[in-house]
Amino acid sequence: MTYCVAMMLERGLIFMSDTRTNAGVDDVSRVKKMHTFEISGERSMILLSSGNLATTQAVVGLLEERSKAPDDRDPSIFRTLSMFQTAKLVGETLNEVVANMRIHDDQPTAHAFSATMILGGQIAGSDPRLFLIYPEGNFIEAKADNPFFQIGEIKYGRPILSRAYDPQMDFAEAAKLLLISFDSTLRSNLSVGLPIDMGVYKRDSFKVGPFRRFDEHDEDFRAISHGWSDALKHAFSRLPDLVVPDE
Amino acid sequence: MTYCVAMMLERGLIFMSDTRTNAGVDDVSRVKKMHTFEISGERSMILLSSGNLATTQAVVGLLEERSKAPDDRDPSIFRTLSMFQTAKLVGETLNEVVANMRIHDDQPTAHAFSATMILGGQIAGSDPRLFLIYPEGNFIEAKADNPFFQIGEIKYGRPILSRAYDPQMDFAEAAKLLLISFDSTLRSNLSVGLPIDMGVYKRDSFKVGPFRRFDEHDEDFRAISHGWSDALKHAFSRLPDLVVPDE
Repeated sequence: MTYCVAMMLERGLIFMSDTRTNAGVDDVSRVKKMHTFEISGERSMILLSSGNLATTQAVVGLLEERSKAPDDRDPSIFRTLSMFQTAKLVGETLNEVVANMRIHDDQPTAHAFSATMILGGQIAGSDPRLFLIYPEGNFIEAKADNPFFQIGEIKYGRPILSRAYDPQMDFAEAAKLLLISFDSTLRSNLSVGLPIDMGVYKRDSFKVGPFRRFDEHDEDFRAISHGWSDALKHAFSRLPDLVVPDE
Repeated sequence: MTYCVAMMLERGLIFMSDTRTNAGVDDVSRVKKMHTFEISGERSMILLSSGNLATTQAVVGLLEERSKAPDDRDPSIFRTLSMFQTAKLVGETLNEVVANMRIHDDQPTAHAFSATMILGGQIAGSDPRLFLIYPEGNFIEAKADNPFFQIGEIKYGRPILSRAYDPQMDFAEAAKLLLISFDSTLRSNLSVGLPIDMGVYKRDSFKVGPFRRFDEHDEDFRAISHGWSDALKHAFSRLPDLVVPDE
């Protein structure tokens, strides 16, 4: 499994992803699921990936290859005219990779090679935009009514996002919110694991970052993880007591 | 979908279940998923059900039928010698019902008629016990390390249970905790719906109850639902801020 989230804020975009990949519970490794594509000053994009690792690495690999020598290896992620076109390119690249894998699959099963991705960023001349790209290569965009996307193990960490998200948050608050959401997920699903990667994109900066990696020794992550348990218990005790009548 | 939880406390057992049942999103109704079996002073049992409604109603119907005239309609849930035997009986009744349904299914699909149940209660002479009964009819028991069971849509409401559960809670606190867990689930999954049924069993009382139903107008439920959002935001703001450095 995987857990990745990206949120749209007034001041930009924030991304977070775990790093665990596994084939069964007896084959666990670490992999970075956050990928950056940037021409400083002109376009800045971050891609988060979940699903089949061979698929997601092939997609990112193809996007990188084709961006290195765009003249003879089209289409390049550095030549799209908008974030919408970029999302379409990523979706088409995903379709291409999965179609190639299926050719060699003797017993095709639905979703065997499938992957889901989040793409966010900004191209000079328009606003930052955020997309969720489905395994079929089609995609939806984040708007005011659905300002964040989650992929992978989305349920454990969703209630706090729904309740505490505010588009006017600064990046420090948003990072805290995402870490709480990740902590809830890490506690419940072994296939989501530390370290956690965070990436920030400030509106109109056309430069991704800062980035930060949180591992189990990270003081901030530990403070939030422990502090949140205490804060929840405190919040719980502050709520009015229910009357359960004796019969 | 469904959401049901039962928790083992030092002072007894507490049960909560939603009431929504649906076949698609265009066919939604209400059904009680909490069932009581009791011989006052001798045995008190509560059964929570999720899964195929025809299956769960057939299981409860058979258990009730056979308890009404136990002499000619064995085996009776009122004649088991222990809660362990009762869990076994419920599991076997579930197997019987599903096997009968499969006979008439031309195109059997796995899990088509499956159901999952929680059984808790006490029979005079031993302690209260709590069981989770799987679709295959086998079951596991709640112990100090796994003191509560959830069935149905379990993920959204789990983080708060894991963090705030305490075996020494009184029923009023436990009811509050369960309502918070249900509120998180209701907000995220349309197929879990109000009203919510609550049932309490006090250790050594051999009398189930009190029971209570929370609907959308219930003052306590509204206070907890709104209060929890505020309490979470307050808890969130109390946590130490993260430093997200400018680059």
